[in-house]
Amino acid sequence: MFERFYDRLACAIREKRSHVVLGLDPDIALLPPELKENLQPPLDEWDEEAAARTCEVYSAFLRALLQALVEDVVAVKIQIAFFEALGWRGYQLYESTIREAQKLGYIVIADVKRGDIGNTAEAYALAHLDRAGADALTVNPYFGSDGLEPFLLRAREKGKGVYVLVKTSNESSREVQDLKLASGQLAYEAVAQLVGQWGQDTLTEVGWSCVGAVVGGTHPTQARTLRQMLPFVPFLIPGYGAQGARAEDLTGLFGRDGLGAVVNSARAILYAYRKRPLPWIEAARAEARDMREVLWKVAFGH
Amino acid sequence: MFERFYDRLACAIREKRSHVVLGLDPDIALLPPELKENLQPPLDEWDEEAAARTCEVYSAFLRALLQALVEDVVAVKIQIAFFEALGWRGYQLYESTIREAQKLGYIVIADVKRGDIGNTAEAYALAHLDRAGADALTVNPYFGSDGLEPFLLRAREKGKGVYVLVKTSNESSREVQDLKLASGQLAYEAVAQLVGQWGQDTLTEVGWSCVGAVVGGTHPTQARTLRQMLPFVPFLIPGYGAQGARAEDLTGLFGRDGLGAVVNSARAILYAYRKRPLPWIEAARAEARDMREVLWKVAFGH
Repeated sequence: MFERFYDRLACAIREKRSHVVLGLDPDIALLPPELKENLQPPLDEWDEEAAARTCEVYSAFLRALLQALVEDVVAVKIQIAFFEALGWRGYQLYESTIREAQKLGYIVIADVKRGDIGNTAEAYALAHLDRAGADALTVNPYFGSDGLEPFLLRAREKGKGVYVLVKTSNESSREVQDLKLASGQLAYEAVAQLVGQWGQDTLTEVGWSCVGAVVGGTHPTQARTLRQMLPFVPFLIPGYGAQGARAEDLTGLFGRDGLGAVVNSARAILYAYRKRPLPWIEAARAEARDMREVLWKVAFGH
Repeated sequence: MFERFYDRLACAIREKRSHVVLGLDPDIALLPPELKENLQPPLDEWDEEAAARTCEVYSAFLRALLQALVEDVVAVKIQIAFFEALGWRGYQLYESTIREAQKLGYIVIADVKRGDIGNTAEAYALAHLDRAGADALTVNPYFGSDGLEPFLLRAREKGKGVYVLVKTSNESSREVQDLKLASGQLAYEAVAQLVGQWGQDTLTEVGWSCVGAVVGGTHPTQARTLRQMLPFVPFLIPGYGAQGARAEDLTGLFGRDGLGAVVNSARAILYAYRKRPLPWIEAARAEARDMREVLWKVAFGH
């Protein structure tokens, strides 16, 4: 019998005393300068050679981070866009990063935001959950139930997790997500209700669903309303750090047992050297540790 | 000065007298049996070896299709999910298929349905439009304007095309897309209005925007309403063939000059051998040719 996704995640949160998700968004422009020495002469033209060298640098960067932050970070969220930007070698690095993170004991969330009609969604689920082997992934709700079924099936039957976009952290999210409905709700609230239904058959021993919601920490009022609407749906909260959400914005979002949310930070940790006078990896570790302690207090009050 | 995407597409439609988009959705289970001989013994376990052999078979399948259908098909729509399902080798095949199709004169639409916050969307645009070099791609509107800006920028300034999901072909599309708004509209109609705005600065010489809409041929009534709402927005119409949309469902969707829509068919062409007593490649060609002739009549009445 498989263990459900959220039983594993909740267990890891308790063991590490951490709600921190490390967002792996490698960006050549922001990398610590000492790592970019291998990229001299500068990458003016993009070609196979440049792609190969960039992949090597990303690989060293990611490996160092994964090894250094294992005590403070409960899960990693791999943002596949930054890997696709390097072509097939980047996709290969995406796959090997999943394996490497899991070997170190991280839970891995593939941040792919896929969504399509049923047979295509099946191919995406096969790609990211079965073959690349991520523990969970993010999906887009625009297609509705039949497009999400291949992912939900793996949450029900294979111990995987699914996080559905509900209210995203960006400014323009209001244009579609906040459309006012005839029912009096906003569009994202209707999506939230669907998410609650989609996860009903995946409740874990700890009482959380394996179908979660992506809720931007940059919208604290809306997030608290969603927490009340969705008492069993765990949140994946982006927007902390570089995008502007602060710890006090997250009050109440962790639910009745303090385990109902994990919080992603990417740029603020990855490139912490820009603000802390430390070697880059120590700056990252210090940032993750501070974030872990602050979130633990918000979730548990001590 | 670059040529705008829809000037190129409209020109190709006229030259080939075709509105047919060939959907490249390679699926191991449906491939012609003679192509699968190389996959003996059967692929029970997925491993590196199986991935490599499957990629070879897909590659031969796709190359044969691209060479055989070049007179009847105006564009190919590469469904990246089926490539991602093969891992990094599949991603490599996705990239080489784009190049090979363009070399043969096809316009290439990357069916990736990406959507994310701004800096991540920039990485996706870099990956698929700049580096993989697709002529156009499909995107998901859930994030709103700032998430789409990197794609729209390339439509305005780099001759690329963007197709935004508006009303998708699947049954459950109603759950989110047909949410009834306080304004009296449905949610997808509000998205359609945004699409009209997003493309305003990309009008071509032929009078069509380079920001199009994905509108499922399985919803003919809704599609006609959208055609009236969006007189300058070209449609990419999935759902023809295997998903059930018929030629008569497309009446009126091609717009004032007959150039305002292209129609995708994947499984019905790729696996036409299942219904036509012909070698698989001839069956595919016959299916594409019939579709081309039928659509031309619907668009131009002769």
